[in-house]
Order: sequence, then C-alpha cells, then structure tokens
Amino acid sequence: MTNPPAPAPASDNQSSSRTGVWLIGARGSVATTAVAGCAAVTAGLHPATGMVSETAPFASAALPPLPSLVFGGHDTAACPLGKRAEQLAEGGVLPHGLPVALHAELAAADREIRTGGPLPGDTRGDEELIAAFAADITDFTRRHDLARTVVVNVASTEPVPEPGSDRLPASSLYAAAAIEAGCAYVNFTPSTGIRTRALAEAAAARGLPHAGRDGKTGQTLLRSVLAPMFVQRALSVRAWSGTNLLGGGDGAVLADPAAAAAKNAGKERVLADTLGAAPEGEVHIDDVPALGDWKTAWDHIAFDGFLGTRMVLQTTWQGCDSALAAPLVIDLARFAARAHEAGLSGPLPELGFYFKAPDPGAPASLSDQYGELLAFAARLGESR
Amino acid sequence: MTNPPAPAPASDNQSSSRTGVWLIGARGSVATTAVAGCAAVTAGLHPATGMVSETAPFASAALPPLPSLVFGGHDTAACPLGKRAEQLAEGGVLPHGLPVALHAELAAADREIRTGGPLPGDTRGDEELIAAFAADITDFTRRHDLARTVVVNVASTEPVPEPGSDRLPASSLYAAAAIEAGCAYVNFTPSTGIRTRALAEAAAARGLPHAGRDGKTGQTLLRSVLAPMFVQRALSVRAWSGTNLLGGGDGAVLADPAAAAAKNAGKERVLADTLGAAPEGEVHIDDVPALGDWKTAWDHIAFDGFLGTRMVLQTTWQGCDSALAAPLVIDLARFAARAHEAGLSGPLPELGFYFKAPDPGAPASLSDQYGELLAFAARLGESR
Amino acid sequence: MTNPPAPAPASDNQSSSRTGVWLIGARGSVATTAVAGCAAVTAGLHPATGMVSETAPFASAALPPLPSLVFGGHDTAACPLGKRAEQLAEGGVLPHGLPVALHAELAAADREIRTGGPLPGDTRGDEELIAAFAADITDFTRRHDLARTVVVNVASTEPVPEPGSDRLPASSLYAAAAIEAGCAYVNFTPSTGIRTRALAEAAAARGLPHAGRDGKTGQTLLRSVLAPMFVQRALSVRAWSGTNLLGGGDGAVLADPAAAAAKNAGKERVLADTLGAAPEGEVHIDDVPALGDWKTAWDHIAFDGFLGTRMVLQTTWQGCDSALAAPLVIDLARFAARAHEAGLSGPLPELGFYFKAPDPGAPASLSDQYGELLAFAARLGESR
Amino acid sequence: MTNPPAPAPASDNQSSSRTGVWLIGARGSVATTAVAGCAAVTAGLHPATGMVSETAPFASAALPPLPSLVFGGHDTAACPLGKRAEQLAEGGVLPHGLPVALHAELAAADREIRTGGPLPGDTRGDEELIAAFAADITDFTRRHDLARTVVVNVASTEPVPEPGSDRLPASSLYAAAAIEAGCAYVNFTPSTGIRTRALAEAAAARGLPHAGRDGKTGQTLLRSVLAPMFVQRALSVRAWSGTNLLGGGDGAVLADPAAAAAKNAGKERVLADTLGAAPEGEVHIDDVPALGDWKTAWDHIAFDGFLGTRMVLQTTWQGCDSALAAPLVIDLARFAARAHEAGLSGPLPELGFYFKAPDPGAPASLSDQYGELLAFAARLGESR
Ligand SMILES: NC(=O)c1ccc[n+]([C@@H]2O[C@H](COP(=O)([O-])OP(=O)(O)OC[C@H]3O[C@@H](n4cnc5c(N)ncnc54)[C@H](O)[C@@H]3O)[C@@H](O)[C@H]2O)c1
Ligand SMILES: NC(=O)c1ccc[n+]([C@@H]2O[C@H](COP(=O)([O-])OP(=O)(O)OC[C@H]3O[C@@H](n4cnc5c(N)ncnc54)[C@H](O)[C@@H]3O)[C@@H](O)[C@H]2O)c1
Ligand SMILES: NC(=O)c1ccc[n+]([C@@H]2O[C@H](COP(=O)([O-])OP(=O)(O)OC[C@H]3O[C@@H](n4cnc5c(N)ncnc54)[C@H](O)[C@@H]3O)[C@@H](O)[C@H]2O)c1
Ligand SMILES: NC(=O)c1ccc[n+]([C@@H]2O[C@H](COP(=O)([O-])OP(=O)(O)OC[C@H]3O[C@@H](n4cnc5c(N)ncnc54)[C@H](O)[C@@H]3O)[C@@H](O)[C@H]2O)c1
Ligand code: NA
Ligand code: NA
Repeated sequence: MTNPPAPAPASDNQSSSRTGVWLIGARGSVATTAVAGCAAVTAGLHPATGMVSETAPFASAALPPLPSLVFGGHDTAACPLGKRAEQLAEGGVLPHGLPVALHAELAAADREIRTGGPLPGDTRGDEELIAAFAADITDFTRRHDLARTVVVNVASTEPVPEPGSDRLPASSLYAAAAIEAGCAYVNFTPSTGIRTRALAEAAAARGLPHAGRDGKTGQTLLRSVLAPMFVQRALSVRAWSGTNLLGGGDGAVLADPAAAAAKNAGKERVLADTLGAAPEGEVHIDDVPALGDWKTAWDHIAFDGFLGTRMVLQTTWQGCDSALAAPLVIDLARFAARAHEAGLSGPLPELGFYFKAPDPGAPASLSDQYGELLAFAARLGESR
Repeated sequence: MTNPPAPAPASDNQSSSRTGVWLIGARGSVATTAVAGCAAVTAGLHPATGMVSETAPFASAALPPLPSLVFGGHDTAACPLGKRAEQLAEGGVLPHGLPVALHAELAAADREIRTGGPLPGDTRGDEELIAAFAADITDFTRRHDLARTVVVNVASTEPVPEPGSDRLPASSLYAAAAIEAGCAYVNFTPSTGIRTRALAEAAAARGLPHAGRDGKTGQTLLRSVLAPMFVQRALSVRAWSGTNLLGGGDGAVLADPAAAAAKNAGKERVLADTLGAAPEGEVHIDDVPALGDWKTAWDHIAFDGFLGTRMVLQTTWQGCDSALAAPLVIDLARFAARAHEAGLSGPLPELGFYFKAPDPGAPASLSDQYGELLAFAARLGESR
Repeated sequence: MTNPPAPAPASDNQSSSRTGVWLIGARGSVATTAVAGCAAVTAGLHPATGMVSETAPFASAALPPLPSLVFGGHDTAACPLGKRAEQLAEGGVLPHGLPVALHAELAAADREIRTGGPLPGDTRGDEELIAAFAADITDFTRRHDLARTVVVNVASTEPVPEPGSDRLPASSLYAAAAIEAGCAYVNFTPSTGIRTRALAEAAAARGLPHAGRDGKTGQTLLRSVLAPMFVQRALSVRAWSGTNLLGGGDGAVLADPAAAAAKNAGKERVLADTLGAAPEGEVHIDDVPALGDWKTAWDHIAFDGFLGTRMVLQTTWQGCDSALAAPLVIDLARFAARAHEAGLSGPLPELGFYFKAPDPGAPASLSDQYGELLAFAARLGESR
Repeated sequence: MTNPPAPAPASDNQSSSRTGVWLIGARGSVATTAVAGCAAVTAGLHPATGMVSETAPFASAALPPLPSLVFGGHDTAACPLGKRAEQLAEGGVLPHGLPVALHAELAAADREIRTGGPLPGDTRGDEELIAAFAADITDFTRRHDLARTVVVNVASTEPVPEPGSDRLPASSLYAAAAIEAGCAYVNFTPSTGIRTRALAEAAAARGLPHAGRDGKTGQTLLRSVLAPMFVQRALSVRAWSGTNLLGGGDGAVLADPAAAAAKNAGKERVLADTLGAAPEGEVHIDDVPALGDWKTAWDHIAFDGFLGTRMVLQTTWQGCDSALAAPLVIDLARFAARAHEAGLSGPLPELGFYFKAPDPGAPASLSDQYGELLAFAARLGESR
C-alpha cells in the first residue's frame, strides 16, 4: 500500500460540525434502513427505538448528533436507494409511506453512492482499487466539508478467504481505503475487513480507531445473555443447538457454506468464551426466501441441574434483521467518530456490546459489555 | 411477642464447627432434595452442579463447608424423608438408587423433624406456637452443639393474608420463632415470613440477618436476564405474557388463586423494575399433576424495534423445580450462616441473585445481582 | 315470536342470480375482511387463498359464484367500512392500498348496514327487535332482487346467558329475525344464536337450514388434527394445556371471563370428543392489545408412549384471525345459500369442518369433517 | 441367488400357533425395547400404550397374539440384550426395574441372536452371506416349531448405496435371506432392504408379502397430519423447515451425510406428496449425544392466508424414539405375519400408516392411511 496523502487531522477541522458515514454496501437492506431511519428520527417521525446511543446514559458522551450525519458509500449494485426503500416498505421492514416522506433525504444519500468493486472483469490491482475507493471517500469528505468520515462495512458477507491468495478480499480493500483516507473504520459483517496484521498496523500507525466484527442482532445477542446465566447459576450446559431461517440478501449469501462458516465462527465463539468450552450442538443457517427480511432463530439448550437432572431451554427469536441492525450501525458510526475525534487509535474492544466477534479484550457477556460501553461513554464525555 | 430469652451469642460458640439448617416444610420436595443432594455431594456421589456457593469465585468467602451442615426442621406432614426421597426418585427428580445409598443421612435428618403448625384444631395462640417452634430450634442447636442454625422457609406457599386479620400467617410464626431462637432467617417462598414491620424490627434489634423472598428458579430467572437485554438495546417491550405448567405439591397449592397471586407479584415485579413500567400481558400458573415435579414455563415477548417494527421472542423452560431450588437453598443457608457469623444484621439485598422479590436495594438484573453476590462474598471473606 | 309473513319460496325466485350475505357485526374485523376480500378476489387482485369453496373439489357443487354475492348487515357501531378497512390495512390484516382500490365496493356494502341492537336504553321488547331486524333483512333482499339471503353472525362474542333470564340474547334475536325473514342462518361465533329449542324448531318448521357454531381458525383447528393422531397411534394424552394471546376487538371482549367461558367450551369439546375424556390442562385467553389482530396460540401436550415414557408436543400458532376467518365466512354463506336453494332444512353437521362446536352428528376429527364436506358438496352438485 | 430350499408352506403348519419375529439389528435400542416391551405387556406389567394393533378396532383382525411371538435376530454387536436393556433403563427409555423383572425373557431372546454381517474382513460373497442368514432364520423357525417367521429390519441406517456397486447393501442381503427362508419382510429403516427390482420380483414369485420403509415416529408423523390440514383449508405453505436433534446410536449414524440423505428423502416426500410440490426449507439431523435416546424435532411452517397474510406454525416434538418405534415394530410384525398367513403377496401399501416412504399406492395423509389400515384389518379378519 502506498503512503496515503496526509489529510488535515480531524481534530483541526473545527469549522465543520458534520460527520460523514460512508457505508460499504450502501444499497443493501441494512444501509437503506440506516439512512431512512436516521432521517425519520431526525425529522421526528419515529422515536429512536433500538438506537442505544440515543438513550439517557449516553447523552453526555459528546457523540455527533443525528442531524449532523451525512451519508454516502460504495455499492456494486445500481438500484436507487429510494427504490430499495420502497421494496423494504413492501416487505414490512420500513413503515408504509416512509419512503415517500423521506424522498429528498434518500435521493441525497443516493447521489453520494459510488460504484464499488471489484466487479467481474475489473482488471485493476489491489493498490489501484484502494486508491480509487479512498479518493471517493476523501472527495465526499471534502465536498461536504465534514469534520471526519467513518467507514462502515455493511456489504454482503464474503466467503472465508482461501489461504495463500495474493489478492486481498474486497472488504480489506475498503478497510485499506478507509485508512488511506484517514477514517475510522467499523466492520458490521463477518468479512475480513481490517483484521489482517498489515491493516491493523497501518491503522495504528495512522492513529485511527476501528471496531468489529459482525453485528450482534439475534441468536448471538440472546446467547450472550443466556450463556452467562448458566455459568452464574453453576448449571452445566450439555448441548446448545441452533437453526437460523433467513431470507433477504443475507440469506441468499449465507446459503454459500463458505460465507456461513464465517458467520458461524462468531456465533460459536460466544459460547466457548462464556462456558469455557464449546458444548455439543451445531448451528444451521438456512436460506428461506419466503421469510423476506424476517429472521427466525431457534435455540435448544440441554443442561444439567443438581444431581444430573436433565433440563431444556428453548428460545425462538423472530426479528427483522435490518430493523435490528440499522440503529446499531448508526450507534457505531457515532461512537467511532467520537473516538476518532477524541484521538483514540487501534481496536475498540469497548464496543464489544455490538459484535459477535469483538476486538480482543472484550468480555463475552452482554451485561459486562454494556458496562464497558457505559464506561467508554463516560470517558468520551470527559475527554471533550 | 414476648421478649425472647437471650441465647448465647452464636459467635461465642467457638468450640463448634457445625451449622444447623432448619427447614420449614422439611418433608417437601425442595427440602428432601436439599438434604439428599447435600449428602450426595458430600459423599462424592455427584458434582455440585447448580450450587453456586461451590464455584471458584466463592472459595474464599469462608462459607460453612457442606459436610458441616446438619439438617432438621418443621413439617405438618408425616411421610418419612426416606419415603419422600423414593417418591422423588420415581418421578425422576432424584437419581435412582440415591435414596438407598443415602439411607442413613436421610434417616438422621428425619429424626430431627418436628411437627409444625398450626394444624387444624390447634387451639394455641400465636405466642404459644412461636415459643414451641423456637424451643424446637433451640433444642436442635444445643443437642448438636451447633455454632448456629439458619432457618429456611421451604413450606407450601400460603394464600395472601387477609388484611386486618389478628393472627399471623404461619410463615411469620416461624420467622418469629427464628428470631426468638437467635437464628438467621431465609424465606425461599412467596409467603409473608419476616416481611412485617414488627418482625423486621425484632430481627434488627436482635442483630440477626435475613433474606428473601421467593426463590428464582425458572421463568423469573429468565426474565431477570432477558428484560435487561431489551433495556440495554433500547428495544421497546410491548407485551410480556407467560404460562407456567407445574405439578407436584407446589402446583396443587398454586391452583389456589390467592396463593398464585402471591407468586405472581414477584414475577411481575422484575419486569416493572427493569422496564420502568409493567408491560401488557398476564401470567398464568396451571396445576398439571401429570407433569410431576417438572415445570414448563412459556414466555411470549412482543417488542418493537427501529421504526416500530414488530418482533417476538418466545422462551420455553422445562426444568425440574426441586432440582433447581435445592442447591440454592443450601447456598442461601451457607451465606446466611456466614453473614450471621460475620455480625451482619437486617435484610441482605446482596442475596437478590436468588430471589424473585429481593430485599430493598437489590438491583433487578441477574448480572448486576451476581456482581453484588461476588462483592458480598469478597466482604465475607475479608471479614474472617 | 309472531308468525312471520311467508316470503316467496327461494327456489321460485328464478329471475335473480344473486345471493345476499347479511352479516351481524358487519363493521367488525371479520366482516370487513370478508367484504373486502370477496371484492378483491372477484376483481382478480388476489388469489382465493384460504377459501375452501374455491378449490377444485368444490367446483361442481353449484355454489353461488363470488361475484353474485351482495353484502349488507347489522352493527351497533358507526365507523364506516372504508375506515375500518384502512385500520385493518394499518394493522397488516389487509394489504396496503386495498381499501383505496376497493373504495366503491366497501361504500356499497356500507350503505347496506343498518343499526343493530339492542343498544343501551333501547326500550323495545324481543318481538319488536326481531321484527325490526327481519324487516331490514327482507328489505335488503327485495331491493336487490336477491334469490335469497344468508344471515351470518360475526358479532362480538356474548357472555354466556344467565339461566332463567326472560330476554333472549341479542344473537338469538338476530337468529329469530333470520327465520322470520326466511333466511338460512350461520353462527360463526360462540354466542347462543339459533341454539335454543324454540328457534331450532322454528327453523325446521320454516324449512330453513342453519349451521354453527364458532369458527375454527387456530388452536382448535390444530387440536382437531392433532388429537386424532394421538388416538390413532394409541398414545395416551395426559395433559393438554393452552394459552391464547389476542388483541383486536375479540381480545377485548374475551377478557370478560363469561365470554371466554363460551369460547373455551368449544375448545375443550374437541379434545373430550376425540380422546374419550377431557385430559388435564387449562385454556387461557389473554387480551394483549399490542398484538392487534394477530393471535398467538401455544399448546403443550404431555403424552405417554410405550411403557409409560413421558413425551411432549408443543405447538405455536401465529395467525391473523380475521384473515383466517373471513374466507370461511364466505364459504359458509355459499354452502348455506346452496343448501337453502337445494331445499335442505335444519342443522347442517356436514359443515362441522368449519366449527369448534359443530351441529350434532359431526365427527370430531378435521379429516373426517373434510370427508363429510366433500360428500356434502357432491350431494349439492347432484341435486342441482 | 440360488433357489432356496422350499420350506413347508406356512399355512400347512397348523400344529403351531407361534410366530417368529426375526430382528435385523436385534441388539439395538428399538429391538431391545420391542423385545422387553412385548414381554412387559404380555406379563401385564404395562398397558399396551403406543401399540395400535392392540386397540379395539383391530381386535378381530386375527393378528397373532402377543404371547405367541418368539424373538430372535441378527446383529453385528455383541452386547447381551439384558445389558442393553439396563443401559436403556439408565437412559430413561425403559422403566427402572424392568430389565431385572424380564431377565428370563431377555435372556431367551438373546440366545436366539446370531452374528450378522458382513463384518470388516468378512470374505464371503453376497450369495454366501444370504445363505448363511437364511439358514439362521430357518433354523430358528424349525427349532421353535413356528407357524412362520417375519423378518424386520431395525439395524443401523445404511449410507445411500453408491450407484454401480456390484455388491448388495447389507440390508438387501438380509431381505434376500428373508425371501430365501420364505418369510414376510418389513423394513423399519430407510436402508434399501427389499427395494430392488430383483428382490421385489423374487418376493412376488415366492408369494411373500413385504412392507416398508422407514418407521414414522416423530417429525414425519406430525407432517403427515399437519400438511393435509393446510391443503384442506386452502392455505398456501411457503416454507417448511425442520431440525432434528438426536443422540443414541441412530444420531451417531445419521451424522454421516450419506445416511442422513436416505432419511431426509422420506421426510420431504410426505410434503411434496401432500402439498403438490416441495415447499422451500431444509431438514437437518444433528447428532447430539447429550440427548441420549430423546429426540427433539422443531418444525417451522411459513404459510399464507387470505389476501397474502403471512402466518407461522411451529411445532416442537420431544419424544423417546425407541419407545415410539418399538410398539410399531411389533404391530408391523403382527400385520405382516397375518398377511402371510392370509396368502397375501407383494408390497403392502395398506401399512403406509407406519412408514415415511410407504409402498406405492399408499395415501400421504395419516388419517387416510389410518382408514386404509382399518379396512386392511377388516379384510384380514374376514379372510380368516
Ligand atoms: N441484518 C443484520 O441483523 C446483520 C447482523 C450482522 C451482520 N450483518 C451483515 O450486514 C451485511 C449486510 O446485510 P444486508 O441484509 O444489508 O444484505 P444485503 O444483501 O441487503 O446488502 C448487501 C449490499 O452489499 C452490496 N455489495 C456486495 N458486494 C459488494 C462490494 N464488493 N462492494 C460494495 N458493495 C457490495 C450488495 O450489492 C448489497 O447492496 C451482511 O454482511 C450481513 O451479514 C447483518
Ligand atoms: N421449587 C422451586 O423451584 C421453587 C422456587 C421458588 C419457591 N419455591 C417455594 O418453595 C416451597 C416448597 O416447594 P415444594 O415444591 O417443596 O412444595 P411441597 O408441597 O413439595 O412441600 C411443601 C412442604 O411444606 C409443608 N408444610 C405446609 N404447611 C406447613 C406448615 N404450616 N408448617 C410446616 N410445614 C408445612 C408441607 O407438608 C410439605 O411437606 C413452595 O412455597 C414454593 O413456592 C419453590
Ligand atoms: N377471527 C376469528 O378467527 C374468529 C374465529 C371464531 C370466531 N370468531 C368470532 O367472530 C366474531 C367477530 O370477531 P371480530 O374479530 O370481527 O370482532 P370485532 O370486535 O372486530 O367485531 C365485532 C363487531 O360486532 C359488532 N357488534 C357487537 N354487538 C353487536 C350487536 N348486538 N349487534 C350488531 N353488531 C354488534 C361490534 O360493533 C363489532 O363491529 C367474534 O364473536 C369472534 O369470537 C372469530
Ligand atoms: N427409533 C425410531 O423412532 C426410528 C424411526 C424410524 C426408523 N428407525 C430406524 O431404526 C433403526 C434402528 O434404530 P436404533 O435406534 O435401534 O439404532 P441402534 O444404533 O440402537 O441399533 C442398531 C443396531 O443395528 C446393528 N447393526 C448395524 N449393522 C448391522 C448389520 N449389518 N447386521 C446386523 N445388525 C447390524 C447395530 O449393531 C445395532 O445394535 C435405524 O435404522 C433407525 O433409522 C428408528
Ligand atoms: Na437482511
Ligand atoms: Na415442587
């Protein structure tokens, strides 16, 4: 990677009060819901349900206010944001009428979406792609006179990269571009992103904070509250089995076993980390297009109590994935932007609350992760 | 209540290293499982699954060791403990063969069970009953040369007392007897127990610690880990409905609406405390004798996510109530005995981890309660 | 009841090819969905999913075609049908845009809704009310030159009538009016309707067919297919417990224990009839307004297999009640109209497929009921 | 296959009133439970729960009485039946104490178990193995002076045979041996068994009845009652997904994808046959040793109602596989023996009630299958 042009340090950019949110996969379900939802909350059309950063404990963390966020991003698809929003409304993800009401905001974000890559037949090498992506981001930041931009990966899950390949996976090209453009980086997907030694070092060298990986919105969220209960109560988990049914773009991608493998690694990690060892049991991800954006996750936990008595807990989670993910994406962009502003650098295990596979050092239980998030917010507030 | 005769302070009793556990309802499922289970673990026949006090974080809290516990109690029923244990083994609560293996221990505990009350036709007044119960406890403590005795209520749930009655409910008679006998007191049931102003004051005056109320072993346990998740994630709970199916003695008693009301108050409290207000939804307790000691609890939680999207979580808990309760009863006896030894007095909100309706000051989330329990154990360890 | 004026026999009315459907409770969720849905299917906007009468086996039963149905009815509420339809679309029961697309059809049906009763303060006696209701129905039939009209009760569930009352419940007033107006009658609710000796005799005397009672759309539907399985497999059902969560108008009404009692009687009947005796277990109906028109029914079935092995089946049904009920209401109106045309009289146990508490003589298992329905359709086709 | 020695025709064997049941896999869970269960019911220790052939409608079908059944079989494992029974009692499949009570009967059956094959290193060809197996069966029949013997395959599920192999799968070797020994044959497993053209023709030529394949005891049983409900109610099934968790020997074998494929083919067939086309959705079989002989099957059915409304049914089945299977194995042996006695020959689709993949001509719905079974029993009764 060539040395990137040194941008003006973010903290110097006192004149601007606006923050860029650059979404990789900007035309996807999660991205569209995030853009529409941020606009809807800003316009007072909906309460900020699901947005942790808007709750009272985070009021004094000096996060960038919702109305100050400016959206743009990369995607390889061409469908305009307004049309994606209409599709999501038809599927019940967005309220009917919202795409029309937010027509202007969606169009504005749509104008800031650039063609990503690599597309089939693209002959550019990694360096060229990184430079092109970085230029898009820098251009966005400059044109809008933004204090800083956070890059958030919400693109389709990549297959686990084959070992020994001499090309970086696309998610890592974007992460490199974020570094090159001097941006904080968040990976909401299970793809590699910034998790290579070289990229992590480059981010540290540039003094950039980053966080990942793979947003925790359903089965793993539940596991991160239930597994600690079994440990705290000294109950012995014998087997933890799970099945996920999901449609939507994510379901189609995860029907590829290689992509599912990336996802499942995160899911099983929380159990092993909490219980000490991975229990018996498998995790399935089924593509069920009929469910649309609605995910169903069934978990079956066989555990032993006193004197070996066999017991069972089952959970069924029926959620709308994009509606769960979108407010967290906005939360993460705000925290990462504030961390960048506050001069923090390197991985942010304090954001483990949001991820299936948090940065090293994060605790595994949701409640401990929430405690860390509160403490982090307090530090961010003090450092203002 | 007359002023009780002052017993020798427990802490003077340096010669003895044994602790009494006096169970009100000593022939019930929970009590029988506790007595048999303690003996089984002590004898190395089973691991201490479900017994929190035996896990590593509590090793240095100076709790009385399991082999040092001596069991006795009151009951109004006559069925010998050994026979109760056989019945529980037939129902799958105790392992087959265990009642035979522990014949001696069960017989020893059975010899220490005294007739409780008031039985139908009993003409004694409250003071007489209290004095008789206290004498039984004191006699037990003296004969076994115990350092101290903890009184634990695991008797059948009482109906909510009618306001204005001039008699104390039986559970409060036993609590008064515990105070009179200079014992720490634990209420594992939803009955009134020590929760009257006069009794709380008497315990404080005597310098006795106590804890309650209503052991948290299933649906409420789950609620105390799930409700915080919704709050932490800023998800809006619309309705939380629950149905409990249970057989056993507890199921028969709770088929009485007045007894069920006592139980449900605790169940709903955790939601109101955590969520800020009680959501829509009811809780049912059905007596289903066919299930024996196996309880099934179904919960249905309707919640809203971002932009008002409707989502649902359902849980089904299939547990053996007595197997869940018994190790906690032993935990509580150990903590209360140690607190007494350490000179603590009054309510112990630090034991909120164990209860549906903890003493005032306890947090509502299980993980916070666990944190308090750890801190309490540390203090107990230091005060040695 | 005075002798009603003899209307021209329906079969003489050869000139007309149209059939009236007179809905008691015409502004309710079920009624509105039935009116809108019939228009939507007629207009080719939606397939006839859920409408059994439109499936191939019934093509030659000579049922009145969907476009020939004309809707009207009684209600005590004033909200126009178009507005009710909008509310249902907001709740996800009707597709967005449908109320606008069917504006004319909804307005036409709305014009044919007359004020029902008795309203609070109404001083009319039973005979007066019956006469007024009958006049409304006759007037509707004449003005539209209908071959015949079927009266279908889809009004709110009534409390179980108090024994010894000298007034008929409203549902029976409407049933009497149907007889007086010479109409076939269907009771889709658990209310009394035509199930009094006097009314049943009057219907028989007038040669009118009728069918009831209480549409089978969820938990009972499932029970009528699952209970036979246990019997056929010689498995021993120990306990069958159920909880229903429902919002909507029906939920609010059934929060009244007296109304719920009417409902539950039907639910438990299918088990007793199929299993030989009612197993242990209760049925709860909870009003959960947050669920809107979406009902959740949880069933827990404890059964014994070979050598007494304990096993469990659980089912969770999440359905939209009005969407389940409406096509059945149209089915029933068509079958009853055709039965009337074919000269059938008295109760129609052949329609037991549709009801929780069918007319005497109907089998209890859904598959047997379906067999009877097929045979009935064949007879109706032949009798043309 | 060489021409087998012609045994005395079964119907000539008037002197004997006893019937042999030769179990392939005679030391497995299902076989052991069948042998123990038949003895327990015969001895009056337990009711015949789960045994359809013992219910009233089958009393006059002239089935061989339970006490007349004599058990033997092949297995490749060496563990004595008595010890297997003890293991099953420890796992809760058999009642405690039963293995001791039935010691004599288990020992008698154990003495009639011969070593099956082919074992690793076995150099015998197909013909040799068939002859050896047939000789074992014939010897058993003669020594016990049995009227006839039925061969029932309850051995481990085989992988789907690789096309083009020149060896028969073991299950087909046993089926050939059954034919050679002049026995009726039942295949309770998904293995090939008699389902090759050559074997089916040989059975027909010998005038032998046979039935298969793969006992229907859980998820598929449920599907065969639920799928018809959706069809009869004109509801549109969008996706039907399922997960099976099972331990025990069967779980371990089905962890092999090739074996699972054989199983799943049967499971999906019932849906395609009933619904007209296979809906979206997958079926998983997970090996979860912690569950022992207890199987959990979760099904999630997404369906559309009127006007496209989305609804969901979920079922959770928690059963003991061997306790479900064993009484059906006895049923099938009795029906097949009686069919043989009555001179029936070739496949018996009338036994489709018992199988996931019945013989051609069987209906797909359980209730229709039950109807056929009743009619079959009537014919068997008349032909006496
Ligand atoms: N929704 C959740 O709850 C949740 C939770 C955790 C993680 N995630 C992850 O979020 C991601 C997005 O999910 P979604 O439901 O929005 O999926 P989606 O399929 O709707 O959207 C993904 C978008 O990424 C785009 N894309 C693909 N490759 C690209 C590339 N090389 N460059 C730029 N854009 C590219 C696609 O064109 C598409 O628009 C997935 O990786 C998913 O695993 C989602
Ligand atoms: N098992 C659990 O998970 C759990 C959880 C929380 C609370 N509890 C409570 O624990 C209590 C015991 O439950 P169980 O399942 O053992 O019930 P159980 O019916 O098996 O035993 C109760 C015992 O109390 C005795 N008793 C009744 N009245 C008495 C009196 N006045 N004096 C002395 N003894 C009396 C009865 O004779 C019986 O032996 C119940 O109140 C229950 O609500 C249990
Ligand atoms: N939806 C289902 O799946 C289902 C199944 C079985 C039975 N039912 C029964 O169908 C009925 C209607 O259900 P719904 O969901 O439409 O309820 P709803 O509350 O939406 O509608 C009931 C209507 O009846 C009207 N009404 C009340 N009293 C009346 C009277 N005396 N005269 C005329 N109208 C009167 C009300 O004003 C209201 O408009 C209920 O009795 C319900 O139990 C419904
Ligand atoms: N239990 C159910 O509900 C159910 C339902 C449908 C089908 N089945 C089928 O029944 C069969 C038996 O199930 P199980 O739970 O008893 O399994 P199991 O593993 O307990 O027993 C299988 C037995 O087959 C023996 N065996 C393996 N290969 C053999 C061979 N070549 N010759 C002779 N014996 C051989 C094994 O040694 C073992 O004793 C399986 O194929 C299973 O798929 C069971
Ligand atoms: Na998605
Ligand atoms: Na109990």
